[in-house]
Amino acid sequence: MGTPYTLLGEPFSRSFKATLIVWCIFLLLIQCSLAATSNKSSSHFYKWEVEYMYWSPDGLENVVMGINGKFPGPTIRARAGDTVHVQLTNKLHTEGVVIHWHGIRQKGTPWADGTASISQCAINPGETFDYRFTVDRAGTYFYHGHYGMQRSAGLYGSLIVDVAEGEKEPFHYDGEFDLLLSDWWHKSAHHQEVGLSSRPMRWIGEPQTLLINGRGQYGCSLAAHYSNEQSSLSQCNVTGREQWAPYILRVDPNKTYRIRLSSTTALASLNVGIGNHKMLVVEADGNYLQPFETDDLDIYSGESYSVLLKTSQDPSQNYWISFGVRARKPQTPQALTILNYKTNSASKLPLSPPPVTPRWDDYAHSKAFTNKVKALDHKTIPKPPSTYHRRIILLNTQNKMDGYIKWSINNVSLSLPATPYLGSIRFGLKNGFDQTMPPENFTAQYDVMKPPGNPNTTTGNGVYMLGYDSTVDVILQNANVLAENVSETHPWHLHGHDFWVLGYGEGRFTKDGEKKFNMKNPPYRNTAVIFPYGWTALRFVADNPGVWAFHCHIEPHLHMGMGVVLAEGAQRIPKIPNEALSCGLTGKKFMRTGNNF
Amino acid sequence: MGTPYTLLGEPFSRSFKATLIVWCIFLLLIQCSLAATSNKSSSHFYKWEVEYMYWSPDGLENVVMGINGKFPGPTIRARAGDTVHVQLTNKLHTEGVVIHWHGIRQKGTPWADGTASISQCAINPGETFDYRFTVDRAGTYFYHGHYGMQRSAGLYGSLIVDVAEGEKEPFHYDGEFDLLLSDWWHKSAHHQEVGLSSRPMRWIGEPQTLLINGRGQYGCSLAAHYSNEQSSLSQCNVTGREQWAPYILRVDPNKTYRIRLSSTTALASLNVGIGNHKMLVVEADGNYLQPFETDDLDIYSGESYSVLLKTSQDPSQNYWISFGVRARKPQTPQALTILNYKTNSASKLPLSPPPVTPRWDDYAHSKAFTNKVKALDHKTIPKPPSTYHRRIILLNTQNKMDGYIKWSINNVSLSLPATPYLGSIRFGLKNGFDQTMPPENFTAQYDVMKPPGNPNTTTGNGVYMLGYDSTVDVILQNANVLAENVSETHPWHLHGHDFWVLGYGEGRFTKDGEKKFNMKNPPYRNTAVIFPYGWTALRFVADNPGVWAFHCHIEPHLHMGMGVVLAEGAQRIPKIPNEALSCGLTGKKFMRTGNNF
Repeated sequence: MGTPYTLLGEPFSRSFKATLIVWCIFLLLIQCSLAATSNKSSSHFYKWEVEYMYWSPDGLENVVMGINGKFPGPTIRARAGDTVHVQLTNKLHTEGVVIHWHGIRQKGTPWADGTASISQCAINPGETFDYRFTVDRAGTYFYHGHYGMQRSAGLYGSLIVDVAEGEKEPFHYDGEFDLLLSDWWHKSAHHQEVGLSSRPMRWIGEPQTLLINGRGQYGCSLAAHYSNEQSSLSQCNVTGREQWAPYILRVDPNKTYRIRLSSTTALASLNVGIGNHKMLVVEADGNYLQPFETDDLDIYSGESYSVLLKTSQDPSQNYWISFGVRARKPQTPQALTILNYKTNSASKLPLSPPPVTPRWDDYAHSKAFTNKVKALDHKTIPKPPSTYHRRIILLNTQNKMDGYIKWSINNVSLSLPATPYLGSIRFGLKNGFDQTMPPENFTAQYDVMKPPGNPNTTTGNGVYMLGYDSTVDVILQNANVLAENVSETHPWHLHGHDFWVLGYGEGRFTKDGEKKFNMKNPPYRNTAVIFPYGWTALRFVADNPGVWAFHCHIEPHLHMGMGVVLAEGAQRIPKIPNEALSCGLTGKKFMRTGNNF
Repeated sequence: MGTPYTLLGEPFSRSFKATLIVWCIFLLLIQCSLAATSNKSSSHFYKWEVEYMYWSPDGLENVVMGINGKFPGPTIRARAGDTVHVQLTNKLHTEGVVIHWHGIRQKGTPWADGTASISQCAINPGETFDYRFTVDRAGTYFYHGHYGMQRSAGLYGSLIVDVAEGEKEPFHYDGEFDLLLSDWWHKSAHHQEVGLSSRPMRWIGEPQTLLINGRGQYGCSLAAHYSNEQSSLSQCNVTGREQWAPYILRVDPNKTYRIRLSSTTALASLNVGIGNHKMLVVEADGNYLQPFETDDLDIYSGESYSVLLKTSQDPSQNYWISFGVRARKPQTPQALTILNYKTNSASKLPLSPPPVTPRWDDYAHSKAFTNKVKALDHKTIPKPPSTYHRRIILLNTQNKMDGYIKWSINNVSLSLPATPYLGSIRFGLKNGFDQTMPPENFTAQYDVMKPPGNPNTTTGNGVYMLGYDSTVDVILQNANVLAENVSETHPWHLHGHDFWVLGYGEGRFTKDGEKKFNMKNPPYRNTAVIFPYGWTALRFVADNPGVWAFHCHIEPHLHMGMGVVLAEGAQRIPKIPNEALSCGLTGKKFMRTGNNF
């Protein structure tokens, strides 16, 4: 008899081979499954440099804030579940910079929300910051600067999230276009800021030009030869190669196209119309809608929509796509481009003049449109909780402070601190901001239909601390501005969340207003408008640990204090990257411990 | 017998009274002596806010960078030995800020030198930085922004240091005026920066207006009615209350006035002339000169002078004071103001037209003036060491890099790092900047009389590390620019030191040039000019622990890389306040240690 080793030798050897084969197959399967997983959820890396550059957004050369030499910045395209990693280097000379990923909720990464003084320190010139976040849901989004008025300076671009691989959109389309809308001033954003912060305040006025994908025409019109209101302008002499040449939508006949619309305007509320074509509205702010047909669509700053368009019209013609100003008395020509049936030359002008934008103050029209916006179903969109834990009422007023003009919420005009809230709250730095919570309501005596009785306001930077996972109602209450018989439209945008838009009403909100709430299929969005003299009721669940801005998306209004700050789940915030907090008290606090060389 | 306490009671009580009186006198004496000391050396506290504001420096409204609502900023006035404490709050919206105290050597406080990326992190919006430093020597100084082109934006003011109490100036005067000179563009400093950093580069051009104490006249002239070159302009309609009304020098007859002149121009070299009056030059850059008389005085950016003026002329007349452009072909009208003998109305115009500025390219005139500038004596001004330990030769060239235009020193164009050198060097952070020392010389083959044979340059941010307390020679070598037959004038300014200007020469510096050195009474200054195609030899002692900029004081030239960085005595730098270093690697380094909540 040999040794046990020899005895066991042969059988082990044979069984080993079999085991090996089994293991190989198993490992291969794991590998394949891993590969499949990584296909489903991949990472997109972008290296960006922000700098000022000469550009002609509307035919007039100016200085814009561009990314990697382009205006607007590059489009980010990813699939739901993917990770986006933007390594952003600030190549400005003396200005900090941040980028906000509008509509991305930043679950688990509140430091990547890109709001200076709120989620992070501004990135200093010469420095690099890594924005790394998950895009958890398909939809039409965009990104933009969120420091001073750098959005007005041109810091924006598109962020499109497709459904995860293997998933389907609840509608079909053959092709798509992405239209990012903005407004443009010839006066620099720096000068605009100075004017707004001056005493007496100097208002920025209406934009000189509306831009579609960063392109507009100033001092000429693409549609000058029609005898319409724009006839005082000469016909644009455009080859198509200019930076300001229109972005033309080239389509095949008898197809369905998805047109993604997002508005990053500083000020303008817009309305889009497409000659001879109807639009089927299917998405708003990354959430599916009950599809509804419309001839024209209102889009406020901070909103996004997808519409489906059937190219069912006479293919021997081209058609106008027009964007005009709503909700403020317009002094800006429509933005125009061409829906070009490829059967024609793109330079063939449509038969009829561009669609006329509804009257700027036809609010009945606006409200009718807004009321059609409803969530698709509760398979894709969560149902609102039937009750709330806390209701905060936010009165929007225009005020004065030592001769400066401010916008205030419950008589507090937001003045951001030097230390980002995220750090102050996470680390309990009580000097970082006002520790008194701002008011949750306003006086019963206040008449929202009249200019403020006492126009004086205060500035502050307190935070609404929300119970983690609690259901919060916000009633945005509009009011008369400083001048008699004027109330403006404000699109409010919430960071870190979507909210259900439960309803709109006229005048001052009362408990009775709840009767109007749509609890069945309220749209789920991140931006909602308040109409003049009206209120808008929102509900959301405070389930995203972080500190979140909630503000009027009109950039000069935010600059004048029209916003609030919300915080929830402070103790659940994961470790914040140091580079997000190396300024203000967080910078100093850390350094006191560390500077022991 | 009572207790010892009782026994000792009376005598103690009596002697106690006497002791008390003696002590009181003693304490009083101490207090008086302390009071005397504090009189001699006091502290001046200023609370400043930097912000943009509307202003009309030259009659055309524009946006300027002001301090506490004023342009130029407030004048600091102290005595030699005093402490100046400026608590600077950045009220800009998105830009960092620093202030450099030009001519103050910052002995023991290198972090207070106010150079972004060199001595400190830029102060972020909303944050406050404490500049606390000693003004150790009487003289005429000024302060200005030292980040991006914020000096061009208007961030400057005067800093005047009187002799310590009980001390005397080596000359007498009855009154004094302080004239801070600058140049002004209607295009914003932001836009200027973009143009300079663009490909192709867009030069800023000549200034629109020259300013005296922030006041100039654009589109009109104070002297339009004389049939001189300015006659194409209309007579200014000025009441005296305008922001752009001239700063008038009101004098009594038969007195001696000290006129302090400092130039914080972005570009212009200036020449001053005063109708019918001679000037006695007595001070340069805070150091006394051998007094010399002159009809006109050249002043380059970064320089300061004091001149004495005798009001010995016809007191029934007023006289022009004029500043015109030198060393560049002028396209800017003279800056004018009035020397007003109080015996007249200030609005009485002088009989003769303003003094004519010498031809811009009359370099013989410039050199003759410069050669008259000599140190007063070695009681007040130290004698230069007779030998040097190290001689660094710095070739000044205009170059190209990937189509960008740069200024380079020994073929390295300075590109400042994100982390301040002071921190990187103090704490040995090797990634903070290029660890290779920049070149000390240039090739023997280089022909300074011709455009660069190979115009390509590199960027870098290495440091000249100097032996502590060593004597360093710097030969600034001028050369032909990119265009044929052009060589420009550059005023070089050294931080943290004065240097002896040993001599000037033509063409390429050789060992022979040493023969021209003035070792007897070279002027001791912080700024010295290099003339076209010439060289300038400087000597200084590296006895001030810190990191110091040395650069062309023409702001767009520095912006295009025309500077070097020197460091000495790194191990002797006292503890740097944390707030100076909360950015870049120093911010991160400290935070890595500290962020352990």
